[in-house]
Parts: sequence; C-alpha cells; structure tokens
Amino acid sequence: MKVLVYIGTSLDGFIARTNGGIDWLVQFANDEAIDSYMAFMSGVDAVVMGRGSFEKVLSLPFWPYDKPVFVLSSSITKIPDNLADKVTVLSLSPHELIVHLSKKGISGIYIDGGKVIQSFLREDLVDELTISKAPILIGSGIPLFDILDQDISFKHMRTLVQSNGLVRSYYERK
Amino acid sequence: MKVLVYIGTSLDGFIARTNGGIDWLVQFANDEAIDSYMAFMSGVDAVVMGRGSFEKVLSLPFWPYDKPVFVLSSSITKIPDNLADKVTVLSLSPHELIVHLSKKGISGIYIDGGKVIQSFLREDLVDELTISKAPILIGSGIPLFDILDQDISFKHMRTLVQSNGLVRSYYERK
Repeated sequence: MKVLVYIGTSLDGFIARTNGGIDWLVQFANDEAIDSYMAFMSGVDAVVMGRGSFEKVLSLPFWPYDKPVFVLSSSITKIPDNLADKVTVLSLSPHELIVHLSKKGISGIYIDGGKVIQSFLREDLVDELTISKAPILIGSGIPLFDILDQDISFKHMRTLVQSNGLVRSYYERK
Repeated sequence: MKVLVYIGTSLDGFIARTNGGIDWLVQFANDEAIDSYMAFMSGVDAVVMGRGSFEKVLSLPFWPYDKPVFVLSSSITKIPDNLADKVTVLSLSPHELIVHLSKKGISGIYIDGGKVIQSFLREDLVDELTISKAPILIGSGIPLFDILDQDISFKHMRTLVQSNGLVRSYYERK
C-alpha cells in the first residue's frame, strides 16, 4: 500500500487561509496543473480525507471524485443518500486504515487535508509527497505541516515548473 | 537599492532546529551549493543580519564575509577589535537602514536571519527571494516566515535542482 500526498501550498507553507480560502492557489490552476492532477489521480485507488475536507467537498456543486472516498471521522453519523455508494466513513487511525484498505485490495491512496496528512506523517506512513508551491506569501492560514517527533527524509524525484510559476516537486520517502 | 534573501529551509519551512542546528541542511552543501552562494554573494555590496546571526557567525573559527557587514541591534555595545573595520552595528528599522545604506552608495544587500528577513517582509521591502529547499522534514525549529498583514506576490524566475536533491527557487517581488 502506497500513501500519497498531492497538495498545493503558499511559499510560506499554508494550504488555505484561516477562513479556508484558496483563491491565492486557484489562480495557478491552469491546464498544466489539471493535467498533472489527472495523471496523479489515475495512479491511486482511493481518496482519504478528514471531516473538514469532506465538508468542503460537499459544498461544491458537483462530486469531484471518480474513486472511492474514505472519510476519517468519529463524529460524522450520516452522509447524503446520493453519496452512499461513493463515500465510506471510518473511525480508524492511519495505521488501522492502511490495514483495512489493504484487505480490500487497495494499493494506493491519496490522502488530503492538513490534519489527515499530519496524522500520517506523525506515524511516518507517507510514501510520496508532491508539493506545488505558489509564488506568494499569504502570511497566515492553515499549515501543511505540524510538529514531528523525528526527522523524515525524502528523496527528491523531480521538479516541474509551470509556465505561471507554480513549482511542483515530487518526493519519495527514503 | 535591492534587498536580497538567500536562505535554505527544510521542507517544513524551518531555517534551523530549535537549538540553532543546521546539520540537516549542511549535508546538502556540495560544490553546486557553494558555487551558487558565491555567485549570489558576488552580486551584493553588503550583508545585513541581526544579533542572533551575528553571534552565530562569531562562533565560527574564521570570519566568512569579504563584504561589509551591518548588524541590526539595539543591544550590542561592542564588537571584537579585529572586526572593527568589517562590522558596523546599527539600531535602525528596515526602512531607515535602506535610506542609510543608499546614502553610502550601497545598491544591493543580502539580509540574513529569520527575524531580520521577517522584519523586512513585514514592510514589504524584499526584492528577491532565493530559497533552497532540503528534502527533509525536521518537525520543529526556527521558521523562515512569520505572520504578515497582507499577501506578497512574487514572480518565479527559475528553479535549479542540485544533484543531491536540494531545490533552489529564485523569486522576484512582483
């Protein structure tokens, strides 16, 4: 099972403004960004997120995923009927989730959202990290990373620069 | 007058461990890094730092700069005799410093150290930002960036990847 992170941040390391806004990032979402995201998504079997990201996705006018979505939450008790065959809510730790999904034959998951990514990193369970860096400081917001008990070293695989200045670096756990 | 930042950070945005350690960064200081630093330094007229960075430099077995150094501090009262012609202590704001050094004919300064960089960014006085990103999470430490009152947009100029995986991106203030 491979655990993959694919996320955009500001130069100062935020994934959203304090109010959740990503206007500063969306302005860099050109065709190159979309192609890259589609290529990434084609390589995963499922999407994993927390309650916060799930509620944000629910607020979109459409359901954006064509892969099974697993929401890590102990507080969500029901999901919209139209998503019953698309979304599963689980109250599991990162390690428990990996065991659970592996048994289902899932071999690559895309984990999204700051809290979920941080919880996987704390258990050193992230295999690949793709970070797209927007050339802007937003000064405050929701950080991608949190405190860790130990260093985690990655191997740089490649870096691609979009024509609009977004710098996307691919890393694998060493 | 151009104000330039040239600094290395961890993937999670720290410039040093909480104890000041940069072992995690120094391991990437190969010939490519040294050549890049020398090329950068050849383009500046002076180095500006705060008390913290100055004390760190003083602890080195040699004085590493061949350019005039200005230390921004209101608490340093004397400097070692052997540095009297190399170091000037000033108690000035970023804006005041720029006015002061411009009058001396200085047209490009390298500002170093988290606090000094943050104080210049708060006044939106940074013209060029070069960040070398080491492929490692260190989990905690001294951050490069601090809270800002407003977004600051940069133009991505170029990104170079060292053979050891350090990713160096050059940005200019938009």
